[in-house]
Amino acid sequence: MSAKKSTQVLIGGKIYTLSGYEEEDYLQRIATYINGKLSEFEELESVHNFTVDMKNTLLDINIADDYFKAKDLCEKYEGDLENKDKEIYDLKHDLISNQVRIETLEEQIGTLEAEKKELLTLKARLEASLEDALLGPSSED
Amino acid sequence: MSAKKSTQVLIGGKIYTLSGYEEEDYLQRIATYINGKLSEFEELESVHNFTVDMKNTLLDINIADDYFKAKDLCEKYEGDLENKDKEIYDLKHDLISNQVRIETLEEQIGTLEAEKKELLTLKARLEASLEDALLGPSSED
Repeated sequence: MSAKKSTQVLIGGKIYTLSGYEEEDYLQRIATYINGKLSEFEELESVHNFTVDMKNTLLDINIADDYFKAKDLCEKYEGDLENKDKEIYDLKHDLISNQVRIETLEEQIGTLEAEKKELLTLKARLEASLEDALLGPSSED
Repeated sequence: MSAKKSTQVLIGGKIYTLSGYEEEDYLQRIATYINGKLSEFEELESVHNFTVDMKNTLLDINIADDYFKAKDLCEKYEGDLENKDKEIYDLKHDLISNQVRIETLEEQIGTLEAEKKELLTLKARLEASLEDALLGPSSED
C-alpha cells in the first residue's frame, strides 16, 4: 500500500486539496475529465438558464452515465471472456483427443510396418525355397 | 433508435425531469446510484463542515473515480480478450495441423493394410506353389 498523500487539483477554476491514497496522476486525470465536462456544459445554450443546483445534478448524471456505460461494457466483456474461456477449454480438449488419436495411429503404423517387414522376409524365403524346389529336379536331369 | 422521452427522477430529495433517448429504467438506476453516494456522504462526519460547493465537487470526483476504475477495468479486459483471441487462433491452427496429420497417418495405414493383404495373398500362393513343387516328385514315386 502506498502512503496517504495530499494533492491539489483545479476543478471549475477552484483549487481543491484532496487527501487519500490515490496517485497524483490519477487525480489530475479525474480533474481534467471533470473540467472537460464543465466546458462541454458551458457550450450548451440549454444549460445557461439552469440553476446551479440543476447544473450540478446534471453534471452528476452525466458522469454517472459514463460510469454506467463503462460498467455495462465491463459486464459484457466479462461474458465474452467467459465464452472465450469455454472455447479455449473445448479446443484444448479436442487437441488432447487428437493427440491421443495420433499416438494410436502411429502405434498402428509401427505394428503394420513390422508385419510388412516380416512378410517380406518370409516372401523372400519362400521364393528362395521355391526356386530350390523347382531347380532341384532339373539339376538331377 | 427509440424516441426522445421525458422521465422524472428523484435525486437528493428533489424531482428532476430528464429529457432524452435513455430508457426510464436506466435513468432510475443512475438516480439510485447518485442517491446512494449522497447517503454515504451524509454519514461521513468529515464532510459535514464542507461548503456546498466542496461537497458537489467531492461527489463529482467520487463518481468520476468509479468511472475511471470501470474504464481501466474495461481496458484490462480488452487486453485479456485480445490475448484469448490469440490463444484461440493458435489452438485452432494446432488443431488443423493435427487433423492434417491424422489424415496423412490414416492414408498411410490404408496403404500399409493394402500391402499387407497383397503380401498375405502372395505368401499363400508361394506356399501352395512350394507344396506343389515339393509334392510333385514324391507323387511321381
